Amino acid sequence: MSERTLIKNLAAANDGPVSVSGWVETVRDQKKVQFVVLRDESGAVQLVHPRAFGEDGSPLDDELADTISGLSQGTFLTATGELKHDERVKLGGVEVKLASLAIASVAIAETPIAADSSIDKRMDWRFLDLRRPEQNLIARVQTTFEHALRGYWNDNDFIEIHTPKLMASASESKAELFEVKYFEGKAFLAQSPQFFKQMAQPAGFGKVFEVGPAFRADPSFTSRHATEFTSVDAEISWIDSHEDVMTMHENLLVAGLTAVKEKHGDDIKALFDVEVTIPSTPFPRIPLAEAKRIVAEHGYEVPRHDDDMDPEGERRISAYVLEKFGHEFVFLTDYASSIRPFYHMRHDDDPGLTRSYDLIFNGVEISTGAQREHRVEVLEAQARDKGLDPEELGFYLDFFRYGVPPHGGFGMGLSRVMMLLLHQANLREVTYLFRGPTRLLP
Amino acid sequence: MSERTLIKNLAAANDGPVSVSGWVETVRDQKKVQFVVLRDESGAVQLVHPRAFGEDGSPLDDELADTISGLSQGTFLTATGELKHDERVKLGGVEVKLASLAIASVAIAETPIAADSSIDKRMDWRFLDLRRPEQNLIARVQTTFEHALRGYWNDNDFIEIHTPKLMASASESKAELFEVKYFEGKAFLAQSPQFFKQMAQPAGFGKVFEVGPAFRADPSFTSRHATEFTSVDAEISWIDSHEDVMTMHENLLVAGLTAVKEKHGDDIKALFDVEVTIPSTPFPRIPLAEAKRIVAEHGYEVPRHDDDMDPEGERRISAYVLEKFGHEFVFLTDYASSIRPFYHMRHDDDPGLTRSYDLIFNGVEISTGAQREHRVEVLEAQARDKGLDPEELGFYLDFFRYGVPPHGGFGMGLSRVMMLLLHQANLREVTYLFRGPTRLLP
Repeated sequence: MSERTLIKNLAAANDGPVSVSGWVETVRDQKKVQFVVLRDESGAVQLVHPRAFGEDGSPLDDELADTISGLSQGTFLTATGELKHDERVKLGGVEVKLASLAIASVAIAETPIAADSSIDKRMDWRFLDLRRPEQNLIARVQTTFEHALRGYWNDNDFIEIHTPKLMASASESKAELFEVKYFEGKAFLAQSPQFFKQMAQPAGFGKVFEVGPAFRADPSFTSRHATEFTSVDAEISWIDSHEDVMTMHENLLVAGLTAVKEKHGDDIKALFDVEVTIPSTPFPRIPLAEAKRIVAEHGYEVPRHDDDMDPEGERRISAYVLEKFGHEFVFLTDYASSIRPFYHMRHDDDPGLTRSYDLIFNGVEISTGAQREHRVEVLEAQARDKGLDPEELGFYLDFFRYGVPPHGGFGMGLSRVMMLLLHQANLREVTYLFRGPTRLLP
Repeated sequence: MSERTLIKNLAAANDGPVSVSGWVETVRDQKKVQFVVLRDESGAVQLVHPRAFGEDGSPLDDELADTISGLSQGTFLTATGELKHDERVKLGGVEVKLASLAIASVAIAETPIAADSSIDKRMDWRFLDLRRPEQNLIARVQTTFEHALRGYWNDNDFIEIHTPKLMASASESKAELFEVKYFEGKAFLAQSPQFFKQMAQPAGFGKVFEVGPAFRADPSFTSRHATEFTSVDAEISWIDSHEDVMTMHENLLVAGLTAVKEKHGDDIKALFDVEVTIPSTPFPRIPLAEAKRIVAEHGYEVPRHDDDMDPEGERRISAYVLEKFGHEFVFLTDYASSIRPFYHMRHDDDPGLTRSYDLIFNGVEISTGAQREHRVEVLEAQARDKGLDPEELGFYLDFFRYGVPPHGGFGMGLSRVMMLLLHQANLREVTYLFRGPTRLLP
């Protein structure tokens, strides 16, 4: 492995010989001195090379200077030289006086995108777009967030599962299903791990989680939808109601956001001008019907014929909660049975309502959770009620025939959390490689 | 949340009132006393209920006794009663004298599988098969192993990526590709995250990892192949050769196995009669040509016309390494270019060989790693050399045109590691839900 110092560690290193590796961000090729800004995965540093002149003032032969003059933006190289701390250098207070450059890979001179390119153009060249410090930070924030979630789950004895994405039938809506040629037959891509994470319950696993892809053949082109996304899922047993799921969910988010704030809070402030807030628990909970009443009282009638909220309503109730309780999160609870899947448990005393919630973060829904119906006769009746064929659901209904504990869980879109945490306008900005109806490349 | 004590915690709890929840494993319905073995995700405990008799010796009305008599195996319930430590109780040295039972979900009386059912039958009823303590342990070992890998990566500043599984074209062999109907067109399922994890290199991410599904339309029915599997991938920059990848790889495995041994070593010994060994580093490395010579000297000529090893050869070289070096792992290095993908870097001084390795664990290949070719002209030539169409690979080749550091990485099958670690004969035993050419259910 090449001995290199990460650029972020230069400030704390002693003056003296040093080697750094990265890509050329800018070259300032001046008459007397040349400057290169080199960036690696941890930061950027200024490399400096004073040109050599003869006694008559004419430039001397200088191979290094020629190399620098020829550097194209994006070229990857290793630079060796002398590290020097100098307060006058704006970029980190250090510079490296070059002794030599070893070029690993030369970049084509023209970069196809610029900072002001359209998002579609930037997605065409996503691997270049990701070089921006903002994108690097998004990736690191997500890494830290996920690791903290898994730390919470691990500390609390959850089992990690990897459910299959190839299924014999639909798990949610048939309308949004991708079909796969499967040898002589066909298969479908899982729209969520719903059925299989529930399977861990009759399996006696107790508490499970999964972070993995989910697929929706949804022809939407909104800023919040993708055909493939990373779903964060958990499912726990022996709950009394969806309240227990919400408690786990909010503790999990506190763990994730605490780690993010600790590790990246300053960088997030610097690059996105966002103050990461660790939410207080319990998060506010508002039954959906009440939430609709509240937004109506504040002048917005949700223009839907079903009982659901709409995106504008979610923004408004979120704004209300932020103002009233100073909280960025709100659980909207007790959605109508008519707009929830058949596997959500309904209230005993009001079967028109489910024991479910949506979690809204900074105005947008990031998650749906619920207690699941585990009584197989009720489950079967609810499936029929929704026009589903219990025959086709046979393998799933079997999970409930041989004993199963009461249970519930949630599914949460990872990119949505990142988008809302970092105040980004579009999922595309926070997804490594976005997939949409017309986007399969790169 | 119901207040319950995990069964594994009973031994350390004080005698007195207690509540446990789980499923009925066995009922011994004797004349004078009834016993129920209740299991939860952490262990099993004996519940005891002495029947009540009148002065004349005839049994009194006893609702609890009737309930116990009617319990079917698999029924989930919560039991409350008095915890009592008693050395004579073989099962954990404690029992719970029952006060009451609350049944959550009644199981159908006949269980469709038994311990001696065929593996195919057990897979039909995987959610019941997973109730076995061995299966619970496998799931926990995998959880611990993965968490330790991610801990290593996190400590070493890797970025976690989630590459898309929907692709516009093949990343490996076209023969083993699943095709997806994608709106008006088509897509393919990623056979590995190869192209997209490499994309993180020109993106300047430095070091990345991913744990996610991969898909192979491979019609094999061996004990080691699946059409969907969990792939553990890492890719690092600024390497000098595949040697740097092997170093990272072995350190990672040491981290994973150390955590497994610490947390589950005793249980693994008890349930699988396997002693988990923490491998010493460096793992033995043997060039493939030498490995073939060694197995030939020991009486086995690999019956292949290409330059590859075969499974029997892998078993034999592994046995040789175990005997000679006392090591369960061996890196076989420097595979022939003819049997490696176009993106493997070849030796400068011998282009017939690649800078690559396979990692063999207890006789079976678990991983392939390599330095990648990052010089775009060479990469393009190697692709052509393999009969691939550089046009079709255009989006991938672009990754190398705008600067890229030297890099390499590996992909490793998670279930294979578990299978070999726990001395299981078949991937199906260690996969949550196996997928094969004729297996899409449950």
